[in-house]
Amino acid sequence: MNEFDLIREFFTHRADSVVLGVGDDAAILAPSPGHELVVSADMLVEGRHFFADVDPARLGHKCLAVNLSDMAAMGARPRWVFLSLALPNLDRDWLAGFSAGFMGLAGRHGVALAGGDTTRGPLTVSVTIMGEAPDGTALRRSGARAGDEIWVSGRLGLAAAAVRHRLEGVALPAEVLDAALADLERPEPRVALGLALRGIASCAIDISDGLLADAGHLADRSGVGIDLLLESVPTHPWLAMRRLAWRDCLAAGGDDYELCFAAPAAQRQRIEALSTPTCPLTRIGRVVSGEGVRLLDAGGNPLTMGRQGFDHFECKA
Amino acid sequence: MNEFDLIREFFTHRADSVVLGVGDDAAILAPSPGHELVVSADMLVEGRHFFADVDPARLGHKCLAVNLSDMAAMGARPRWVFLSLALPNLDRDWLAGFSAGFMGLAGRHGVALAGGDTTRGPLTVSVTIMGEAPDGTALRRSGARAGDEIWVSGRLGLAAAAVRHRLEGVALPAEVLDAALADLERPEPRVALGLALRGIASCAIDISDGLLADAGHLADRSGVGIDLLLESVPTHPWLAMRRLAWRDCLAAGGDDYELCFAAPAAQRQRIEALSTPTCPLTRIGRVVSGEGVRLLDAGGNPLTMGRQGFDHFECKA
Repeated sequence: MNEFDLIREFFTHRADSVVLGVGDDAAILAPSPGHELVVSADMLVEGRHFFADVDPARLGHKCLAVNLSDMAAMGARPRWVFLSLALPNLDRDWLAGFSAGFMGLAGRHGVALAGGDTTRGPLTVSVTIMGEAPDGTALRRSGARAGDEIWVSGRLGLAAAAVRHRLEGVALPAEVLDAALADLERPEPRVALGLALRGIASCAIDISDGLLADAGHLADRSGVGIDLLLESVPTHPWLAMRRLAWRDCLAAGGDDYELCFAAPAAQRQRIEALSTPTCPLTRIGRVVSGEGVRLLDAGGNPLTMGRQGFDHFECKA
Repeated sequence: MNEFDLIREFFTHRADSVVLGVGDDAAILAPSPGHELVVSADMLVEGRHFFADVDPARLGHKCLAVNLSDMAAMGARPRWVFLSLALPNLDRDWLAGFSAGFMGLAGRHGVALAGGDTTRGPLTVSVTIMGEAPDGTALRRSGARAGDEIWVSGRLGLAAAAVRHRLEGVALPAEVLDAALADLERPEPRVALGLALRGIASCAIDISDGLLADAGHLADRSGVGIDLLLESVPTHPWLAMRRLAWRDCLAAGGDDYELCFAAPAAQRQRIEALSTPTCPLTRIGRVVSGEGVRLLDAGGNPLTMGRQGFDHFECKA
């Protein structure tokens, strides 16, 4: 078995949505009439976006999950993905694990791996994902209006707590650490929620850089201010009992991949109807006139943070 | 100026073909009705695909050129590109040069940079390009029939000669070296030719791995054999006088990014009419029944090669 065969073994699959797949100069895809294309690209580098010793299946899952999360934030149905890998060597077990995580998640979301590239180099994963939304329906970061309510899916803070544990040695109870590592390494992209929010949400974003930073993007692009209530931010019970001390993780930690969105108060019932045990939706604040994001305590007083989000010279679209 | 601003300064541009560009969770693009999408991804790693000391403008040019070349080989009109960069540091001069090369070539081909990602890491460039072709018209690698003639654009061998010079210290006259480095570092993607070949060529590929290897892909995918005549392979005069000694560069060197295509003999006049001084088209062989590719001398005898192409565990689509 040569190197081509090894790559093909793990990453070739046939999909009806791909007219022509791996094995030509390019893939040929048939877009849906009346739909816009929604496209996002992410690059993940060892030591920067993931630890060198991460389980390859979890890494494969996460590399696709962060891209699916971008589709979710746009209310787009993910359809095709392109995967480029630089690998220091061809390790069969590593590839088997990575592809199991990546292709497993792709299969669950009906996404076809339509092409990509593989080369030798420092471990780097580059993913471009393509989705579709009916013309004019995609959710943007702009669109929030004063009076809208701010919602968030799932729970926040555990992924950042796991990073603090790894980087700073902060102690966490064993069961909290397990849950935190799962949130960090196996985020569940909120694709179904994003689709359901079309026509309901006035804007949306996924929380990759931290709640305050990402709510800040909504505020900036919408030309409004946002007030958030720390007490309302959904999180793990262990962190909930330590909200103030752990507010950096809750409100400025990255890697949650939950959706944060605004919607008119009149949509509250429809949104509550979308809330489920595995994807609870929580109202955490409101849109105000002005600019910027404020995190408020129960008395309505602004809280200061140690940091404002995760900024490692990333600039993505 | 922070890091976000620096990236934006060099890579932001507005294009009518992009509904929503950099600055949201994803770009929104409006595909053309009645067209298929043609998509290709390439990853280039320092020390593997380019020398560490390469001029950044030439690198920016080349990273897009190799992707445009894939569109050319498909007969697709390139429309949108996504660029992900891992950079060891934020060097303003380097970014200015890289973006000048990349954006300059994009502008000349009417391609919009619609998104991407930037992060710190070992220098790695990942590009996903998206083009369009009217339904069913894209050129594939399959489609060659016994009796077809094999054509190639431009000239072959100089890029590989430049690599041999750099890696093995092989001596080249100064003017040949200049031309060779230009072919290696500033290939001109044959986009216009690819578009013109729709309805004429029975199959096409771009020569990135070397003539024999890439003609081999045409043969494999088409279920035919291909005979090529070394004497007919177009090249630089200096190499032309040394064909036999330099046949590895002419027929098995990579990085030429010319098009190799098959067409019925009845199309010969139409193809000759497409030949220009800057993009000459040369008939170099024919399709035969059977399988595999043979390189023949003037007497019709098969030649052996030192190598069969550039295989560094790459597997791309």
